[in-house]
Amino acid sequence: MAYVFTNIIGCFILDDKLNIIDKILFQKVGDYKNKETAEKKLKNKHKVLQSLPENKLSSVLNLFKDKQYHQQFYKINVSLTKQAIKNSVTEDQFIIHTIANINELDKTTNLLTKRLREWYSIYLPELSEEIDSNEIFVELVNKKSKEELLKEINLSAEESMGADLKEIHLKEIQMLAKRIIGLYQLRKEHEEYLQKIMKIYCPNLLELAGTTIAAKLLELAKGLKRMALLPSSTVQLLGAEKALFRHLKTGSRSPKYGVIINHPLIQKAARTDKGKAARNLADKLSLCARLDFFKGEFKAKEYKKELEEKFR
Amino acid sequence: MAYVFTNIIGCFILDDKLNIIDKILFQKVGDYKNKETAEKKLKNKHKVLQSLPENKLSSVLNLFKDKQYHQQFYKINVSLTKQAIKNSVTEDQFIIHTIANINELDKTTNLLTKRLREWYSIYLPELSEEIDSNEIFVELVNKKSKEELLKEINLSAEESMGADLKEIHLKEIQMLAKRIIGLYQLRKEHEEYLQKIMKIYCPNLLELAGTTIAAKLLELAKGLKRMALLPSSTVQLLGAEKALFRHLKTGSRSPKYGVIINHPLIQKAARTDKGKAARNLADKLSLCARLDFFKGEFKAKEYKKELEEKFR
Repeated sequence: MAYVFTNIIGCFILDDKLNIIDKILFQKVGDYKNKETAEKKLKNKHKVLQSLPENKLSSVLNLFKDKQYHQQFYKINVSLTKQAIKNSVTEDQFIIHTIANINELDKTTNLLTKRLREWYSIYLPELSEEIDSNEIFVELVNKKSKEELLKEINLSAEESMGADLKEIHLKEIQMLAKRIIGLYQLRKEHEEYLQKIMKIYCPNLLELAGTTIAAKLLELAKGLKRMALLPSSTVQLLGAEKALFRHLKTGSRSPKYGVIINHPLIQKAARTDKGKAARNLADKLSLCARLDFFKGEFKAKEYKKELEEKFR
Repeated sequence: MAYVFTNIIGCFILDDKLNIIDKILFQKVGDYKNKETAEKKLKNKHKVLQSLPENKLSSVLNLFKDKQYHQQFYKINVSLTKQAIKNSVTEDQFIIHTIANINELDKTTNLLTKRLREWYSIYLPELSEEIDSNEIFVELVNKKSKEELLKEINLSAEESMGADLKEIHLKEIQMLAKRIIGLYQLRKEHEEYLQKIMKIYCPNLLELAGTTIAAKLLELAKGLKRMALLPSSTVQLLGAEKALFRHLKTGSRSPKYGVIINHPLIQKAARTDKGKAARNLADKLSLCARLDFFKGEFKAKEYKKELEEKFR
């Protein structure tokens, strides 16, 4: 009577005294993944074989405490772990990095545009006063000449307090504007990308929450799986952690919503309805996350309609 | 007997009872700047004219308190102020904005590269561990394929813990790398620009301090004029305000240097010599600022040699 026993380093044949009488060692992880091939080979060779009975397992495991196997165990184990890490990559990570980078790009463009506004104001101070939107301001500085801009804000060159700058000085300012525009473009690309991957990965959540809020929820929940497992009251407050802990600590008013505050449903709800709307929205978002995680049907459109009718 | 009197709104002829008997009103600032033309015209017309004696000045000024002149005074005054603002632009402002923006670009590239490192580590985590320099890391991500990079860090694809990414995911990461490179390029352009304008504006300071330190000193001193007027002990501590006030308030050790700490002379000086080197360097930097502001000769090379010999 002989037994067949397989672990990550190879496939072994043991006699009834549990001595190894034959073996095939695995050379790489791939061999272990196809262990059936090795097992079959040995089975064909030795004919009458049994699987190892459970009560003999610990004795067999003791066999492999022998030093000669350590190196091999270590090698295959590391490879297996590496493969596990490789395979652990999910859409969550892409989404979380992208939304985090969008936030960082916002910070960055704000910082650089503030400088651009001050710097450009040597040349044409009236423009910065006139244009509130950072993005439009940068576009104008990049695209239009002083003459065109003066016309746009109805000012003569005489009336402006701006100095005439030599090309060498103006060029630095315009280069800055160009780089900021590049960052704005990257932000747009990121948003389109988010939408594309979320449409496949979490269509329900995307439909009900919109790109940015959905991505932020996933970021705060640290992934779709965890979000699917959160109670909806937690989803409601994701992003309001600071206010929540202040509430718990000092007894200040409890927050009603986290990042979902920017959702059109909450924005449009009557003042007195906002809390209720947030609760209802969080309920449905929670359901959406579960549907998406467990590959359920597409119900977000219904939910959306339902909520819209309730909080018109 | 008649008098001629000119102010910003026009040129006037007054009789001895101080009534206005003739005038040329200025239409725009340019006319006031060429007031001699108007004065000559009136002098030719009225022949025997005197300048207004000082004791009659206040009576004449009273004449112009009349409401009819207000609008005109206001208009020309605003124009004059605007022109003064226009003409107040100096190299200082360009330098200060540029060096401030360099600092902001540093912050920005650090923030974005931190994200890039994490994000790219899904794909090839071993690269971020291998490459310390942010700039080199971004360049590599942008220029080289995974295969090339694996070769560079002596790793097989099997050994790497990085996942294979689809083109759509990889593209986002590479776009980020591209934008960061753009910011690094802008920083380099800014440095070249600084060097160019400082070579003309403050050649002594530039020579002795180097681009970055010179620009930072000008930023902290708020311009060459103010820096030229500062005592050298203040120049020595520019950029160490926090430590200085902590010293004054709590009696902690007084700081020895501000931004000049990065100057090669201080860096290379023996530990016990650093304070003395800072004092000597600040002395010479102060002299350089004065030479540059008062358009003196080029002495920075001599100073530099002197200091280098002293603190070898």
